[in-house]
Amino acid sequence: MDRRYFSRVLMGTLGVSALAPGVLSSSLLREQPLIDGPRLHRWLREMSCFGARAEGGVDRVAFSDADIEGRAYVRSLMEEVGLDVRVDLVGNILGRLEGAVPSLPPLMVGSHIDSVPAGGNYDGPLGTLGALEGVRTLHDAGIRPRHPIDVVVFVNEEGGKTGSRVMAGEFRLEELELESASGFTIGEGIRRLGGDPERLAEVRAAPGKVAGFLELHVEQGAVLERSGIQIGVVEGIVGIRRWNAVVHGAANHAGTTPMDQRRDALLGAARLVEAVNRVVNSIQGSQVATVGRIQASPGAPNVIPGEVTLSIEIRALEMDRIQEVMVGIRQEADAIGIENGTPIDLNDFYLSGAAPTDERFRGWVESAADDLGLTHRRMPSGAGHDAQAVAHFAPIGMVFIPSVGGLSHHPDEYSRPEDIEAGANVLLGALLKADAELD
Amino acid sequence: MDRRYFSRVLMGTLGVSALAPGVLSSSLLREQPLIDGPRLHRWLREMSCFGARAEGGVDRVAFSDADIEGRAYVRSLMEEVGLDVRVDLVGNILGRLEGAVPSLPPLMVGSHIDSVPAGGNYDGPLGTLGALEGVRTLHDAGIRPRHPIDVVVFVNEEGGKTGSRVMAGEFRLEELELESASGFTIGEGIRRLGGDPERLAEVRAAPGKVAGFLELHVEQGAVLERSGIQIGVVEGIVGIRRWNAVVHGAANHAGTTPMDQRRDALLGAARLVEAVNRVVNSIQGSQVATVGRIQASPGAPNVIPGEVTLSIEIRALEMDRIQEVMVGIRQEADAIGIENGTPIDLNDFYLSGAAPTDERFRGWVESAADDLGLTHRRMPSGAGHDAQAVAHFAPIGMVFIPSVGGLSHHPDEYSRPEDIEAGANVLLGALLKADAELD
Repeated sequence: MDRRYFSRVLMGTLGVSALAPGVLSSSLLREQPLIDGPRLHRWLREMSCFGARAEGGVDRVAFSDADIEGRAYVRSLMEEVGLDVRVDLVGNILGRLEGAVPSLPPLMVGSHIDSVPAGGNYDGPLGTLGALEGVRTLHDAGIRPRHPIDVVVFVNEEGGKTGSRVMAGEFRLEELELESASGFTIGEGIRRLGGDPERLAEVRAAPGKVAGFLELHVEQGAVLERSGIQIGVVEGIVGIRRWNAVVHGAANHAGTTPMDQRRDALLGAARLVEAVNRVVNSIQGSQVATVGRIQASPGAPNVIPGEVTLSIEIRALEMDRIQEVMVGIRQEADAIGIENGTPIDLNDFYLSGAAPTDERFRGWVESAADDLGLTHRRMPSGAGHDAQAVAHFAPIGMVFIPSVGGLSHHPDEYSRPEDIEAGANVLLGALLKADAELD
Repeated sequence: MDRRYFSRVLMGTLGVSALAPGVLSSSLLREQPLIDGPRLHRWLREMSCFGARAEGGVDRVAFSDADIEGRAYVRSLMEEVGLDVRVDLVGNILGRLEGAVPSLPPLMVGSHIDSVPAGGNYDGPLGTLGALEGVRTLHDAGIRPRHPIDVVVFVNEEGGKTGSRVMAGEFRLEELELESASGFTIGEGIRRLGGDPERLAEVRAAPGKVAGFLELHVEQGAVLERSGIQIGVVEGIVGIRRWNAVVHGAANHAGTTPMDQRRDALLGAARLVEAVNRVVNSIQGSQVATVGRIQASPGAPNVIPGEVTLSIEIRALEMDRIQEVMVGIRQEADAIGIENGTPIDLNDFYLSGAAPTDERFRGWVESAADDLGLTHRRMPSGAGHDAQAVAHFAPIGMVFIPSVGGLSHHPDEYSRPEDIEAGANVLLGALLKADAELD
């Protein structure tokens, strides 16, 4: 079946659907219009056709034909709601619902629709279509917000948050030459979406130009699901630092070198792996530390390793916390080096700044969840999001919903319909509170 | 300079040289003739020309032109002593000094002359030329042993102990098809040396056909050098077993998976590496255990490793000791698997049997060292040697001398002249004791 025809036919049947049942008391219904759950599910299902893989999941990497088709589909939905749609010079799509107070800057709400290769159907589309569903609900209910509201589809989130980072002024021109997963360079890709890579400076949003930004997303971990909590109130996107640790020993014959004459780099590395785990767990908080990569040289069963290189990654909501963990690891590494005769060098090679959410937005998300009778908890986002870039020029808030098994970037990524509806309603509620209280 | 001419010229100048000075009392001189140190050093130097590398060391891999030239050189030395030289059907060279009692089986003494690629000048040639020097000394002193004495050059020690394993009946015919470091298959190589790969069964030595075997070798570790001891009395060649340990965890996002929800395969592997070290050190003895190879999957800094494979190698003089160490490791691995949520599988993939030396030979080596006023200690051989194969059909003894820094299989491998002379004299002394006492 032709996918566009499929979408057109289904869209032709859209109307005002039944409200989501169950979770709401009649008193709350008077305060906040509720999104149309079946309509949102249908939109998500239709979006899943663009780049659908026979084996499940989608290949809708940024700049691919499937990405371009998916974007056209979102535009058609925006236009149907009567939003004023424009594509900026990097290719971000912004669909505006006009506000009642023309002097106020816009509130932004949205996410992305591009996927990783062999990705799932919720990471991105949930935030984009959930935002659009909220705005459609306002429109259909005849509610006019004070601020203009821009529903946004950011370009190439999965391949480097291109659209949001260009708005934040973080994008480096060298990145235009990088090949994206689509096979096109990012520069070529921007042109394919109707942007102009030579005029990206014009996209930059100065602080104050955007009143605030809200993003709905699947959790990408299993914290909510395991704890049976419906809504995650995101405290911020964690900062990340990565180091290479090099453990220097002495390669030697595994048969002729007695145990007490060894300087075994892998034994030093093993003690370091344990130390990383011990130190990060010894400090209160949600920070995490991971050794994901290890390489022993020369790497033969009959040779004592002479050098081992391993990666250490630390993530935390505050950069100071990352530093605190690293100070502890460094002390342990020095002690291991001395005790084991295998000195350890630590060299940092990657840094991504933490992006805390705005405390007012956290409160509005919590209050929206309370209004709807939903359970919620505060939590960090361990993964990166467009909101992280937007935080450079506007206050941000984020809403998480449970993802079954914590699976993400995987064809089997899945969120339950009731969680999706709950998330979209919280998003809309928080958006209305922000609209009411922000200038 | 033409290397053969060089050898011929130098050999033409050989005569009865001065005895090695210093270490011997005059009373001992009456009991045992002493080898000619300068002659042995010259032979070693000349041998180092066959396959000499511009950067130092030698490429004299088995079956190469350099190997064939080096073998011709040893034959010429044997013939000069008047030995009866033959090449058996696998290519082993045997130079016989006839004994006084024709009914006695021969004593064998020797080693190999092939090297690893970019090898050193002592591993192999020391044992071959040291044996020949001892026999030449007997010949020149007019001493006739009771047993015939075969000075042996075994084929392809470094590439699989081909010559000695064919004698032991351990060689598998499939090995003929294996490509050796020379580029020739082992079968082609045997033909190049004058052997016949189709008649290898005729080479096999039945128990009783050889009275005993002695091998002089550099230690290939640093135990003797660090302890300042001159002679190593080898207790045996250690047995080797190798396992692959597979640690099963769950690969997950390093940002979104809290510390208390991880099943980190690398953390389990690190604890196993420590356990291997702890267990092998907790048992009295000279056994060693090594984790030389490790691979974490998927192996990215931002992904918790889902599976880690590592090698565990244990060496000990008795196979039971290897088993004892493994029982301890297995217990720890099970406990780590449960505690860490990362079950560990252990699968063995390599076995090389232990080859203890004969207690009488150990005594003769000690007694020969005592006669010469040399310090000595018993020790295992962590590396493999031709003697290991010979042990299948005859009692064996081995003599080690110090190797500077324990370097081996390396161009910088080096043993001091005085240690070489001491080793060759102990070899000769032990050979005479064996000749006197063995039937």
